Amino acid sequence: MAATLERELSIGARMHGWASDLFPICRSLTGPGVRQTLEYLSDLFPGLQVKSIPSGTRVFDWIVPDEWTIRDAFILDESGNRRVDFRENNLHVVGYSTPVDGWFTREELEPHLHSLPDQPDAVPFVTSYYAPNWGFCLAHRERIKLERGRYRVVIDSDLGPGVMNYGELVLPGRQTSEILLSTNICHPSMANNELSGPVVQAALARWLTGLESRRHTYRLLFLPETIGAIAYLSRHLEHMKRFTIAGFVLTCAGDNRTFSYVPSRSGDTLADRVALHVLARRGSFRRYRFLDRGSDERQYCSPGVDLPVCSVMRSKYVTYPEYHTSLDDLSLISPEGLTGTFEVLRKCLMILEANQCYRASVPCEPQLGRHGLYPELSRRQETSERRPLLDVLAYADGRADIIDIAEKVELDALECAEMLEALHRLGLVQAAESRA
Amino acid sequence: MAATLERELSIGARMHGWASDLFPICRSLTGPGVRQTLEYLSDLFPGLQVKSIPSGTRVFDWIVPDEWTIRDAFILDESGNRRVDFRENNLHVVGYSTPVDGWFTREELEPHLHSLPDQPDAVPFVTSYYAPNWGFCLAHRERIKLERGRYRVVIDSDLGPGVMNYGELVLPGRQTSEILLSTNICHPSMANNELSGPVVQAALARWLTGLESRRHTYRLLFLPETIGAIAYLSRHLEHMKRFTIAGFVLTCAGDNRTFSYVPSRSGDTLADRVALHVLARRGSFRRYRFLDRGSDERQYCSPGVDLPVCSVMRSKYVTYPEYHTSLDDLSLISPEGLTGTFEVLRKCLMILEANQCYRASVPCEPQLGRHGLYPELSRRQETSERRPLLDVLAYADGRADIIDIAEKVELDALECAEMLEALHRLGLVQAAESRA
Amino acid sequence: MAATLERELSIGARMHGWASDLFPICRSLTGPGVRQTLEYLSDLFPGLQVKSIPSGTRVFDWIVPDEWTIRDAFILDESGNRRVDFRENNLHVVGYSTPVDGWFTREELEPHLHSLPDQPDAVPFVTSYYAPNWGFCLAHRERIKLERGRYRVVIDSDLGPGVMNYGELVLPGRQTSEILLSTNICHPSMANNELSGPVVQAALARWLTGLESRRHTYRLLFLPETIGAIAYLSRHLEHMKRFTIAGFVLTCAGDNRTFSYVPSRSGDTLADRVALHVLARRGSFRRYRFLDRGSDERQYCSPGVDLPVCSVMRSKYVTYPEYHTSLDDLSLISPEGLTGTFEVLRKCLMILEANQCYRASVPCEPQLGRHGLYPELSRRQETSERRPLLDVLAYADGRADIIDIAEKVELDALECAEMLEALHRLGLVQAAESRA
Repeated sequence: MAATLERELSIGARMHGWASDLFPICRSLTGPGVRQTLEYLSDLFPGLQVKSIPSGTRVFDWIVPDEWTIRDAFILDESGNRRVDFRENNLHVVGYSTPVDGWFTREELEPHLHSLPDQPDAVPFVTSYYAPNWGFCLAHRERIKLERGRYRVVIDSDLGPGVMNYGELVLPGRQTSEILLSTNICHPSMANNELSGPVVQAALARWLTGLESRRHTYRLLFLPETIGAIAYLSRHLEHMKRFTIAGFVLTCAGDNRTFSYVPSRSGDTLADRVALHVLARRGSFRRYRFLDRGSDERQYCSPGVDLPVCSVMRSKYVTYPEYHTSLDDLSLISPEGLTGTFEVLRKCLMILEANQCYRASVPCEPQLGRHGLYPELSRRQETSERRPLLDVLAYADGRADIIDIAEKVELDALECAEMLEALHRLGLVQAAESRA
Repeated sequence: MAATLERELSIGARMHGWASDLFPICRSLTGPGVRQTLEYLSDLFPGLQVKSIPSGTRVFDWIVPDEWTIRDAFILDESGNRRVDFRENNLHVVGYSTPVDGWFTREELEPHLHSLPDQPDAVPFVTSYYAPNWGFCLAHRERIKLERGRYRVVIDSDLGPGVMNYGELVLPGRQTSEILLSTNICHPSMANNELSGPVVQAALARWLTGLESRRHTYRLLFLPETIGAIAYLSRHLEHMKRFTIAGFVLTCAGDNRTFSYVPSRSGDTLADRVALHVLARRGSFRRYRFLDRGSDERQYCSPGVDLPVCSVMRSKYVTYPEYHTSLDDLSLISPEGLTGTFEVLRKCLMILEANQCYRASVPCEPQLGRHGLYPELSRRQETSERRPLLDVLAYADGRADIIDIAEKVELDALECAEMLEALHRLGLVQAAESRA
Repeated sequence: MAATLERELSIGARMHGWASDLFPICRSLTGPGVRQTLEYLSDLFPGLQVKSIPSGTRVFDWIVPDEWTIRDAFILDESGNRRVDFRENNLHVVGYSTPVDGWFTREELEPHLHSLPDQPDAVPFVTSYYAPNWGFCLAHRERIKLERGRYRVVIDSDLGPGVMNYGELVLPGRQTSEILLSTNICHPSMANNELSGPVVQAALARWLTGLESRRHTYRLLFLPETIGAIAYLSRHLEHMKRFTIAGFVLTCAGDNRTFSYVPSRSGDTLADRVALHVLARRGSFRRYRFLDRGSDERQYCSPGVDLPVCSVMRSKYVTYPEYHTSLDDLSLISPEGLTGTFEVLRKCLMILEANQCYRASVPCEPQLGRHGLYPELSRRQETSERRPLLDVLAYADGRADIIDIAEKVELDALECAEMLEALHRLGLVQAAESRA
């Protein structure tokens, strides 16, 4: 137990370390920051394929945007002081800002400035992916210090045809049934949303890679949000609709606050069932509605896509105060927070690996004593305690999977799986058509 | 808005005026009062067909009763004073009283008198449609003043073969799908139950007549209660079962108290769904059970008829203190009360006109910005607010109609319909097999 | 009513008398006590078949155990005093104890003694059916008085090949549809668990035998718990799966505390529906989950058996303090307690005898007055009261049985059956395919 604890803390510390390494990179939908991030991730586990789609490619209703490169951006006052400086924090420049170099009055500058009066020390995260524009984000406290006068504004960026990149890791299993994990690599220097998702997914990739044998095939995607998922689906939709049995969007995975769950559109897919089982047994969690969705489950669960995908998070995007600001920094995520999400998702995957419908082989209860499974003396104490083995067996009707059975008998699904595997070795149950 | 308000108040005032005109007429199941009422209604909108069925006609398990004509009725005391006088209030005579003219002692009179000790000023409404009898209704305060002695009793009525009348208005639509509206024209001088139903239905008839185009066909019935509905169903059952998609019984529609709803037998027909949607969005209302039914939904929802019919009312019959007494007079109903019911039903009909299943045309969310539907700059504020258009689209799976979608996304069904029509014009959704 | 009360008290007194007669017999899974009990029962009603299955017979996963005969058992101290004596209470010997005769030190005796420190005056009930062992049960207060020293231990028992007995009563009905009643005859001197089940089942056998005509066939089983049910099912499974429409396990039927209900695995069989209807109309009761099952419903509801069987009890086994101890004696059960359970089960059977789906013969409500079923004068009072006859008729759609209808209209199922039979005689409803 102590060893396990140490190993897991060590996973948490490692994930936090990866996030720290990735934090300074200025990511966006496209550009060198995304490639640099994918390169870093590809060192953490083998097999990551980095793909690219040319700007202008039509993907369903969308068009892949131009590639954006940002080198520098600042606002100089007349005394030559850098009053806003991209090099200090890459959130200072509006994502996808077009290049600019010129002198502006304070009034001319005004519509290009973004700040949060209610959080005067936070630099907000603003983008303008799909309409040409430029701007700066800054703490409100700094904004109000910008006196009347003239300012030199420089944004040293390129916005033009190029590619959009994403990472794909497919880990084959014994079956064609697939499990999808999907996270985003398009956010600049913010930690919970979104470096926590990529690092937890990287840790899961390492764990899955290390398994002796995988039953299911795993498809792990590291995508720019929205356009990346849409582009990926436009290339793989038929395959994914045919083989995906469950999927999880990984985002906001690292703060050590309560867990959150956003269901799939129907709310009762295998992904929902396993996530709800694991979260409910762990303790209390916030259960959101599909209306509250906000990440790539918007695409995975859209009509015509209809993949069985839900989200397991810590504090849900939008709901926590640091969201989409410079306050979402490395201090917001912790090894413990990252480890908790990693454990919840690993548990979901372990259950899906074990998931199976079983059918009792003989009518009536078996004579447990004959199989070495039962106390021989019947005292009041024994008959009064719950007999989980018989309960599990009582629901092994060939239609209930281990998640169903676990919910019925109010036990952990992996414990149920172990009991059923023991009963299977004794010939007391047989495998039925699996739902997973 | 001010103009709309004025127009609607004016509808209410007009409805109240019609009720005032109709109030003095002595209606019953049959007879000249019913014909006079139908004649008045036929001046309010074009196309009302007045039908008649001969007394003695077998309709399902029932027999159409004889026609009743009442000219005068009174009780004279020995001094020649009219102690009870039909001309003062037509509730004073028991409906369908057989003719009588003779002297009776106070004791002989007793079993023919009806009053309400708990409401000593109210004249109750009593009928004896299906067994020959005669009687007088009077305020309990007046009854106890009737001293011992002899009284001359006159009921100048006819009860003999004739016809039962009802009114029918069929407004054809582009589709064969039909919507039923049904109300009663068999109550003497009472206002909420039942002149409110006929006048609201008349206002709906005028509105429907004025529509440029109707999608559905509308069948508006003005019937004597129970026997009228049964007789009508006996003539039209197969047609109505085949084409009726929703129907509403209009009764107790005019007092300005809280709304009430009585479900169909199954409780989940299209009529129930649209009524519940409209009532719930308007505010609180009383939700009754099918066991609480009491008007012609008893026939429309009976086994073997099974029409999708529910009732939307203000104070439900039986439950309010003035019910079936002289206290249910024109002061109990108000232009506001009538207008409220008119608006609720008109809204139901508008939703049914617009109701449709839509299916998203492309997988994933559309690029709203490209279609001019989305803010171009993504700030925290924008992503944090709910995006009703995307929510509506997310449920456009080809099986949900606009009522389903509206319930899911917690918006008004007509707003959803507008959004879906906009998306349809942009080619982002296509119409699917309609459930309405 | 007074007569009924007297008759029923008399049934209760009779049941309590039978339990008193049977109480002293030392029953176990097998042996002369079981045969003596079955012989006594066969005098209470005609037709009980006593069957036997040889030891060693394989029944599904189980093997019928050897037959156990116990003649005497005691512990003597060095002074020759019987410190524990089977003749005082047959609970003192562990069920299925192997023979023993020898001297033991106090320490050697220790692992063979069973007592309840929390209930120091109660002798516990302990068995070792499926592993050879021996032991004594005693009040904890007596156990701690057993000083150091040597004790002579004698158990004069036989454990060897023989038979397992059970009783079967099949009462044929007009239909092949069967109802199962099942109880246990394997407990030594305890009253609620388990003489109450056999005596209530005997009273039901007498009542069923006395019926002029039975619609269903009744199968009443008096079995050793678990192995008896398994053995019986191994011989009759296909027949029972084909014909059984409902069944009830009778146990813990005699204390006068609140009723308890344990559902079948699915919880919605005909047996569950009728039991819930009867219990809920009687008042409050404890509703357990299938996980709380503990008697032969464990076999009847196991996967592969899947019979529609639930349990109706007073205080459920395990939950009451006297359970499986010498405190569960004749003072714990009462004529009133036994009568209550008898009445609940008889009511269930009466409803099942009457159960039927009806379909209204004509569309719309019938003209009740024409059939002599309705008041002729319509006053406010009459229309305001619920009309159970019309409510019952409104749900007679050919798919609802009388239990469904009774639940809908919130009446007693037998009252509904009476109304529907009256309507049937008038031709207003017709019988539809019965679900029972």
